Amino acid sequence: MRKRGKMDTKIRIAIMGYGNLGRGIECAVRRNGDMELKAVFTRRAPETVKTVSGVPVYSAEELLKRKEEIDVLMLCGGSATDLPEQTPEYARYFNVVDSFDTHARIPEHFANVDRAALEGGKVAMISVGWDPGMFSLNRLYAASVLPEGKDYTFWGRGVSQGHSDAVRRIPGVKNAKQYTIPVESALESVRACENPELTTRQKHTRECFVVAEEGADKAWIEKEIKTMPNYFAEYDTTVHFITEEELEREHAGIPHGGFVLRTGRTGADGEHNHVIEYSLKLDSNPEFTACVLTAYARAAYRMNREGMKGCKTVFDVAPAYLSPMTAEEMRSRLL
Amino acid sequence: MRKRGKMDTKIRIAIMGYGNLGRGIECAVRRNGDMELKAVFTRRAPETVKTVSGVPVYSAEELLKRKEEIDVLMLCGGSATDLPEQTPEYARYFNVVDSFDTHARIPEHFANVDRAALEGGKVAMISVGWDPGMFSLNRLYAASVLPEGKDYTFWGRGVSQGHSDAVRRIPGVKNAKQYTIPVESALESVRACENPELTTRQKHTRECFVVAEEGADKAWIEKEIKTMPNYFAEYDTTVHFITEEELEREHAGIPHGGFVLRTGRTGADGEHNHVIEYSLKLDSNPEFTACVLTAYARAAYRMNREGMKGCKTVFDVAPAYLSPMTAEEMRSRLL
Repeated sequence: MRKRGKMDTKIRIAIMGYGNLGRGIECAVRRNGDMELKAVFTRRAPETVKTVSGVPVYSAEELLKRKEEIDVLMLCGGSATDLPEQTPEYARYFNVVDSFDTHARIPEHFANVDRAALEGGKVAMISVGWDPGMFSLNRLYAASVLPEGKDYTFWGRGVSQGHSDAVRRIPGVKNAKQYTIPVESALESVRACENPELTTRQKHTRECFVVAEEGADKAWIEKEIKTMPNYFAEYDTTVHFITEEELEREHAGIPHGGFVLRTGRTGADGEHNHVIEYSLKLDSNPEFTACVLTAYARAAYRMNREGMKGCKTVFDVAPAYLSPMTAEEMRSRLL
Repeated sequence: MRKRGKMDTKIRIAIMGYGNLGRGIECAVRRNGDMELKAVFTRRAPETVKTVSGVPVYSAEELLKRKEEIDVLMLCGGSATDLPEQTPEYARYFNVVDSFDTHARIPEHFANVDRAALEGGKVAMISVGWDPGMFSLNRLYAASVLPEGKDYTFWGRGVSQGHSDAVRRIPGVKNAKQYTIPVESALESVRACENPELTTRQKHTRECFVVAEEGADKAWIEKEIKTMPNYFAEYDTTVHFITEEELEREHAGIPHGGFVLRTGRTGADGEHNHVIEYSLKLDSNPEFTACVLTAYARAAYRMNREGMKGCKTVFDVAPAYLSPMTAEEMRSRLL
């Protein structure tokens, strides 16, 4: 890697899509002294969007007109329909970062984005965040270091938006929040190098806090939740009925986190065990995800300045590109 | 990063220096199907060195003669006197990996090695292992993702060779093993985002298992240990006198490990806390270190084949270079 001095000018960031993730990026950019947020772009009416910092909000249609003011565009749409369209579209004109997380469609997304970014001469970072993202990195490092071993990923304790939505769709449910919880005894078995084969039910439990409509049949709702295929049937699920006030007071946050573990053997006869464990405990899932995207925006900008282009994942980024420190500072302070 | 197919031929590894680390590399190479160990080189009489796998052992003087048979040379000497000489010397002729860990001398070592490797057109990876190494990576990733936060590194529970040696030098001590132990309450305070300011004494305790010579003054030995400047005086130390048999039976291993934590805040007003934690629990310190060096040998080889040269640290290596998987496999299985 080239020796790098401090940047003379700040990296100019723009956000496309202003929900929880976009707001998180706005806050993250303010904590990175080598960056500045130039604008937020939205498909809503710009005057209806209130940003935290008062940064200008423009219509998505103005994006290409403001191309020269932007070094990296942060794509904050959803993986279902927004990003499959937007990332290839914008990677032609901008260095971009997205958090695409529909695992089965990553090869297709990668190919589409790669084509566009190569044509445009830009760097497009896809699937950035914590899983995919930091967890993926830890799976890769651990598997490379301990080739003879076994991987485990646990999620939680945290709010699953998809599962919360599924509960909210049940007739008679006014509001709901669902937590995914790793099973502590399963974690302990992994840490003890017992190499357990764990079923879905043995790895995680699910806990739902449900506000029922007045007069709704709670027993029926509980049964609907617990037997819902794909979402709950394979898990041990607990259902609590609470008031709207309690839901607001106790369950307003979007915490999440989880654990990536690898255990493996070394020695002439595999006589020594090793445990590598990485964990996250996050008060705010979207804000932490935003922090990861922001660090990778720095990398996208620098890599493109060095002449790189095309679609990249976290696997392709040398860690030094993520830090505002010079190579010398990193070696003396972090190595 | 370029799309890579499976290697046609195996990466040819050689080991310089056959102690615990060299033996660990020998075992690690056998677990990596894309590598083969060609030879061990030693400054001892080659016929006195017995390898685990029966790989040929040559005199260090023969190394340059066998240059064409070696893709990556693993330097397994010590940081005090061996590596400052050997790494610059051999980086002129070979892709090399070392585990240089004298922190204060890294800038000087980097400069010397960089000069040699650039002249020779080779890649030289320095300071590879777990600390420096995997722990450094985790400090860098975490600091980049949470710029407003605080770092903590704890070591142990594990054997410190330096401290064990210091105890063994005390008159009347026949043998000894010293364990460094992180203070659990300090770890818990960090995990609770209390951002504690921890003194040396508050972070780690030390525990010594000592075999005294017949008739030695144990009370005096214990006092000598506990008051030893730099090594023990700043710590709470426990001393146990045991028999040689018990030391052999219970304390023959070289376990180690530790924790890297970063806590940080996000949100408009820093209202959300996040905890990133990486930990290692290792039955064998040198064997795990060897595994990390072996993964970085793969990276050194590939990076050099792509035309890179010069001194590199773990910060400069894109994670994908470490894995035997193709880019497609990595994206589908690990991302």
